[in-house]
Amino acid sequence: MARIVMKFGGTSMAGIERIRTVAARVKREVEAGNQVAVVVSAMAGETDRLVGFCREASALYDPREYDVVVSSGEQVTSGLLAIALQAIGVPARSWLGWQLPIHTSDAFSRARIGTIDTEALDASLARGEVAVIPGFQGVAEGDRITTLGRGGSDTSAVAVAAAMKAERCDIYTDVDGVYTTDPRIVPRARKLARVTYEEMLELASVGAKVLQTRSVGLAMKENVRVQVLSSFTGDDAPMADTLPGTMIVGEEEITDVERQLITGIAHDKNEAKITLAAVPDKPGAVASVFGPLAEAGINVDMIVQNIAHSTGSTDVTFTVPSADLARSLDVLGQAKATIGYDKLVHDTRVAKISVVGVGMRSHAGVASTMFTTLGERGINIQAITTSEIKVSVLIEEDYTELAVRVLHTAYGLDAEVEAA
Amino acid sequence: MARIVMKFGGTSMAGIERIRTVAARVKREVEAGNQVAVVVSAMAGETDRLVGFCREASALYDPREYDVVVSSGEQVTSGLLAIALQAIGVPARSWLGWQLPIHTSDAFSRARIGTIDTEALDASLARGEVAVIPGFQGVAEGDRITTLGRGGSDTSAVAVAAAMKAERCDIYTDVDGVYTTDPRIVPRARKLARVTYEEMLELASVGAKVLQTRSVGLAMKENVRVQVLSSFTGDDAPMADTLPGTMIVGEEEITDVERQLITGIAHDKNEAKITLAAVPDKPGAVASVFGPLAEAGINVDMIVQNIAHSTGSTDVTFTVPSADLARSLDVLGQAKATIGYDKLVHDTRVAKISVVGVGMRSHAGVASTMFTTLGERGINIQAITTSEIKVSVLIEEDYTELAVRVLHTAYGLDAEVEAA
Repeated sequence: MARIVMKFGGTSMAGIERIRTVAARVKREVEAGNQVAVVVSAMAGETDRLVGFCREASALYDPREYDVVVSSGEQVTSGLLAIALQAIGVPARSWLGWQLPIHTSDAFSRARIGTIDTEALDASLARGEVAVIPGFQGVAEGDRITTLGRGGSDTSAVAVAAAMKAERCDIYTDVDGVYTTDPRIVPRARKLARVTYEEMLELASVGAKVLQTRSVGLAMKENVRVQVLSSFTGDDAPMADTLPGTMIVGEEEITDVERQLITGIAHDKNEAKITLAAVPDKPGAVASVFGPLAEAGINVDMIVQNIAHSTGSTDVTFTVPSADLARSLDVLGQAKATIGYDKLVHDTRVAKISVVGVGMRSHAGVASTMFTTLGERGINIQAITTSEIKVSVLIEEDYTELAVRVLHTAYGLDAEVEAA
Repeated sequence: MARIVMKFGGTSMAGIERIRTVAARVKREVEAGNQVAVVVSAMAGETDRLVGFCREASALYDPREYDVVVSSGEQVTSGLLAIALQAIGVPARSWLGWQLPIHTSDAFSRARIGTIDTEALDASLARGEVAVIPGFQGVAEGDRITTLGRGGSDTSAVAVAAAMKAERCDIYTDVDGVYTTDPRIVPRARKLARVTYEEMLELASVGAKVLQTRSVGLAMKENVRVQVLSSFTGDDAPMADTLPGTMIVGEEEITDVERQLITGIAHDKNEAKITLAAVPDKPGAVASVFGPLAEAGINVDMIVQNIAHSTGSTDVTFTVPSADLARSLDVLGQAKATIGYDKLVHDTRVAKISVVGVGMRSHAGVASTMFTTLGERGINIQAITTSEIKVSVLIEEDYTELAVRVLHTAYGLDAEVEAA
C-alpha cells in the first residue's frame, strides 16, 4: 500500500462541479489501494477577494488578523471536498492547520512550516479515511493561525508528503507538465518526463511558472518525489502513477540515457536593469551600492561591473525585480552622496534568457553555443550570469521570443515532427 | 470600569464601509472607559452562500464538515473588524471559537454552548484590547469546529456576556428596539423601554423577530441584561447606556409604575392547522397522534380536542410550523391505521395572535377582553392556548392585521399622538 499526496489548485476547486471531479479522481487512487492525503487551495479568486477586504480595511493590516481572514478560503474548500468524497462513498475528513497541527514560524502572512504532527493523520489514514488538508495555512505558537504566503499550497503539499513519508506528491495544475520551454513561444517544445530538483528550481525561478519555487526547494531538501500533471484530463485518464506528467526527482534517479546536455530554456520579463554611471573605482564602492538595497530586502540578480575608466570610475549594472524598481531607485537616490555615482539610469525593456541543465556540469561549450547563437541573430547581450547548471543573459525585451526559439533549436530540444 | 458585550448582525458587517462604522461605535464605548468584547455575524448573505455550497456538494452533508465550511463566514468578519479597530487606534484581536475556547456539545450544526474559558479573554481585556469574537461557532471535544444553528450569534453574545460577567449585552440590529406590536401593522405601536425575559420569549417565539429565542432563554437563565438597539444611528447618537433601545431584564427590575397589564401583541403566520376527524375516543388515542410527531421532531403547538361525538369518536385539531406541514402529513398518513382516524384535513391560511404581559398574572379578564374584542369584529376563534403570561388564539389569516389593531387599542397600547 502506497501513501500519496494529491494537491489541487484554485481552478480545480472553483465550484462544486469541479470539486466533484476532484473527488472522483481521489476515489480512483483510493480504490487502487493507496492511502491518500489531499491538499487543496481556495476557490479561484477567493483569496484575492479576502486579501482585498483586508487591504480595504487597512493598508497597514495586522498580518495575524490577515491570516485569520485569508486562511478561511482553504477551510471552505477542504470541508466541501470532504463532503463530496463522502457523497461518493469515500470516508474523508478535513484537518485544518491548527487541528493536525501544521506548526509554522510566527512570521504571519509568510510563515515557514516547521514540523507537522502525524499521529492523528496516521490514525486517520489507517482507518481508511482520506485526509483533506487546506493548503497555505498552519498554526504558530500561541495557537494563532498562520499562512505561508501566496502559492503556499504547493509547499503545504510537499511538507505533508515529507511528514507522512509519501511515495509521491502529485501536483494537479492547469499545465500537464514541465516543458523544455514555453510552448506558446515554441510549439515544438517537448514535455519533460523527468527533471531534477535543481533544474526545476532554475526553471521555476526564471519564469516557468508551474510550481512555487519554495515547494521545489523543500522537495529537494526532504527528497520528496513531486509529479506535475494536468487536472483537466477526464475520468478515463490513466492512473497518476502511469500518467505522462513530469516527475521532479533527485539527480540520481535520472539515467544516463535520459540525461540531456540542456533540459530547458526559460525567460523572464519581470526584471529591470539599473546602471550607476561613474561610481568611484575604490575599495568599498560596490558594497555602498548593494548594502542599502539588501537592507531594503530587494533581491539583486545579475551584476556587471565594467573595467575602470581612465578617470578612476566604473559603471555598475545590475537587475532587480520590476516590482521593486521604484523602491530601488528611491534607495539609491538617497544613497547618492555615499556612493558617489554620477548618473542613475534604468530600463525595464529587458528580458533574462536562461539555459538550464545538470548536463552542463560535465560539458564545456554551453555558454559559448549560447553567445554564438544569439550573436548570429544580432541579439546583443547586456549582462551574463552563470551557475553550475545555468547560463543566463540579459537582452532587449523585444528579442525574447526569437532568442528562445533559436536557442531551443541550437541545443537540439525541438520535438521531432512526424511525417504526414 | 464596566464590561460590556456588543453584538452586530450580518447587515452591520456587510462590507468594509459598514465594518468601519461598527469599529467607530466600538471605539466610543472603549473611550468611555469600558472593557469591550464584540460578537459578530458573517457578512449578510455569506452564510447562505456557504450553506448552499454544502447542500450542492451533498444533500446528506456531514454536519461536522458543514460546520468547518459555514463557520468561516464569522471568522472573516472577526478578523476584518480587528483590523478596522486597529486602524483607528483601538488595540484589538480576534478570538475564534477554538481559540478562546467556547466549548460546545458535539451536536454539529446545532450545538449548544457549554462553558467558555475566560482566562485568555480576561488577560486580553486587562491589556486594554477589544476582543472580537465570531458568533455562531464553538469547538467540541476532539477539537472539531461546531456551529450553533442559524441565528446563533445572539446566543454567542449572551453566553460571552455571562462568562465575562458583563454589565450589559448590547444587540445591535436593524430595528431600534422591541415594540408593543409590529409597527408596520400598527403605526401607533410604542417602543418598550423594558421588557422581561419571559415576555420577550413569548413575543419572540410568536413572531416578533428581534432576538433569537434561544438567546433570550439563556439571558434569563444567566441573568444577563440584554439591550436591543439600532445599528443604523449615526456617530452622533447617544452612548449605548443612554440609548433609547429596549432593555430585556428580570421581572424584579421592572418597577410598579412601569408595569403594564399587557406588554405587547404578537402575530405569527407561519403555523399550519391540522385536523384529524373522528379519532376513536378512548385512552391512548391522543398519544397515538402526538407520539409519532414528537419522534419526528415536530413541535406541536395549539391543541384542541372536541368533546366526543355520540359515535364514540372525537376531532383533534392542532398546529405545527408551516415548514413541518408536509412532513407532519406524511407521519400522520403512515400512522393512520394505528390512530384510526377517519379524515385528515389541513389549513395553512391561519394566523396565531397572542397578547403577552407579566401583568396578567395578577389580573383576571385579559382573555375575556381578547375574545370579546375579536368577537365584536366578527373574527372567529379556531383554537386557544394560554400560559401564565400569554393568551393566544388561532384565526383566519386574512384577519391578522385587523385583529392586531383592535387588540392593540383594546389593551390601551396605542401611543398618544401629539397635537399638531
